[in-house]
Formats: sequence, C-alpha cells, structure tokens
Amino acid sequence: MSMVQSVAFVGGTAGPWRVRSMRAIAGAPLASVSAVDVVPGNEVAVQVGAPWVLRGVTSHARYVTQGESATLRAVQAGLGRPEATHAAMLPISKSEAWWALAQDERRAIFEERSRHVAGTLRYLPAISRRLHHGRDLGEPFDFVTWFEHAPEHDALFDELLEMLRATEEWRYVVREIDVRLVREDGGPY
Amino acid sequence: MSMVQSVAFVGGTAGPWRVRSMRAIAGAPLASVSAVDVVPGNEVAVQVGAPWVLRGVTSHARYVTQGESATLRAVQAGLGRPEATHAAMLPISKSEAWWALAQDERRAIFEERSRHVAGTLRYLPAISRRLHHGRDLGEPFDFVTWFEHAPEHDALFDELLEMLRATEEWRYVVREIDVRLVREDGGPY
Repeated sequence: MSMVQSVAFVGGTAGPWRVRSMRAIAGAPLASVSAVDVVPGNEVAVQVGAPWVLRGVTSHARYVTQGESATLRAVQAGLGRPEATHAAMLPISKSEAWWALAQDERRAIFEERSRHVAGTLRYLPAISRRLHHGRDLGEPFDFVTWFEHAPEHDALFDELLEMLRATEEWRYVVREIDVRLVREDGGPY
Repeated sequence: MSMVQSVAFVGGTAGPWRVRSMRAIAGAPLASVSAVDVVPGNEVAVQVGAPWVLRGVTSHARYVTQGESATLRAVQAGLGRPEATHAAMLPISKSEAWWALAQDERRAIFEERSRHVAGTLRYLPAISRRLHHGRDLGEPFDFVTWFEHAPEHDALFDELLEMLRATEEWRYVVREIDVRLVREDGGPY
C-alpha cells in the first residue's frame, strides 16, 4: 500500500461539501463554485461544467524530523470525524525563490524560524489536516491542504491561519485561496 | 520558468540513443528495447509498439545543503556535451520503509552515512547527470537518473555505480534497472 494517494478536489455544483466562502488571499482567484467534491484516485469523472479540478498526492513528509513526526502522530486526528463538519481548502503556491533554496535553508525557514510544526501543535487534535502535493504533477498549485474541525473551533482555525500567514515561510507564498466549507449532511449548519 | 520539467523516456526501436545493454539489478526487469528516446514535455506521442514509457519531472533538490549545492554547481557539467556519447539510464524505486522515514533520517542515510554527494564529487564533471522524480506521478519508478559521459570514462562510471550500490542508502533500493546507451550520431562507437 503506497503512501502516495491521488486526490482530486472538484469545484462545481455537486458534492458533500457546500462552499461557505471563497477568497483569494494572494494571486489570481479561483472561479466561484457552490460545492466541492473530494474524490480519491487518478481517474476522476469530471462533473459536466465543473469550473475547476485541483489534483494532489499525499506523499512522504518533506521537513519534519523523527521526533516531530512521533509527536504529530501522537497528537493529530484524522479526517472524517463525525463532529468535524466544517472544512477549509487552502490551495497554495510558493515562489521559484523558495524552490531554489537548498533543503537546509527551506527547513530553517519552515521550522527553526517559522515554527510550522511547533507552533501548530496546540491546534491539534481539534483541527485535522491532510496535505496534497501538486507541484511535481504540473498542477496550478504546489499544495492543497484540507482542514476539518467542529463548528465551535471556527475561531481557533482562524487563529491558526493568522499565525501561519504571519510567518517568514508565508513570505514565499505567491498564490493562496481560502475556501471554507460545510458538510451538507453535517447537521443544522 | 519553472524548475519542474516533465521528461518521458520512451523505450522502443526509434530515438537517438541505441541500447548497448539492459540489466535488472533488483526487482522485475523492463522489457528489452533497442533504442530510447528522451522527450521533454507532458504530451508525448507514444511510438506505436513502444514497450514502455517512463516519466519523471526535474524538480527541486530534496537533500543537499546550501554548501553542497554551491559545490555541485561549481563542479558539475550539463547534459548534451558533444563528447558525452555514452549514457546510462537508471530507473530506481526505494522501499516503503525508506519513504516512511522522517526527513532527518533520510538525510542522515543519504549523506552523513552514504556520502551520496561528497562521494560522487570526484566523478564530476566527467560524468553528468539529471534526476527525474516519478513517485508523486504514480510512475512505476520513484526516480529515473540519466547519466552522460565520454566513452573513455566507462570504467569511471562503473566505479561510481559500484560505490553507490555499496552504500547504506542502496539497501532501500527495491527495484533498479541498468540501461547503457550510445548516441547514434556520436561517432564510431
């Protein structure tokens, strides 16, 4: 069983996740849609009229150390929890300057200076996430991160994003879309 | 200009690189072919009857430090030198155990213990190389490395491979094909 799993995010009018808001934080916006479907596998039957399909693969971790990895595994929660009816999808691209950095330089910005792991630990397990890599696939976004949390943690999630966006790492983000969603079968929201 | 460039290695009967030998070092072999074409871009018109097409993308370096990167840039040569009429194509896959390691563990095996960069510096610039990543693309091989050198450096190239294959890093290689080639317009070889 490979760790590399392909996922397609289909923006259109169908799917279990209804869009609450879409906002371009940096760079060109994505076309507005009313729903997002999250479809595993490489062969996605694209919805007729779906304005966009973003693809990514779950893959091995690129920066975390053995110790950080063990800490994360002990604390984090998976996707699909019944109470986690709110989601956010964050497609992001970083600059060519970021990708031209050596591994030790990217690691130093990512963690030693931006505290990407250490700083986000206190948001776990309330907020769960899964990272999808699109850069090597020739996708328009380097990453799509999918977050899920219970509605009472909306403010906590906003705080997490505010913290991340203030980091040195985020200075390398050249395109970022912020899509907030609610699961249609998720209750009275 | 993105650093991510897609390349297809088309094994068949046509192309500038004639196959001198093909050997499975580990894992399942590749079907025998008489020639390989190296085709940039995502939309490759596959040759009729081509037994295989391996795809990969050039991408950012995953392990080298800023210092190693500067050293490599100062020493290495690019592909396509007129005298470099011999080539080798090495499709390789590593085990799931490798990919499950954290970044610092993979780095320690790759360089501190296997000397992947430091140990190969003395083979530059005689031997040039380009690495292509296939794992995130769902390709059968995690990497395809393409090497080029002048015919008088055949023995030097064999020495480089012998050194690499004796490293701790190589214990994680579960599939490896060794394809040696000669450029058909490259003279009397």
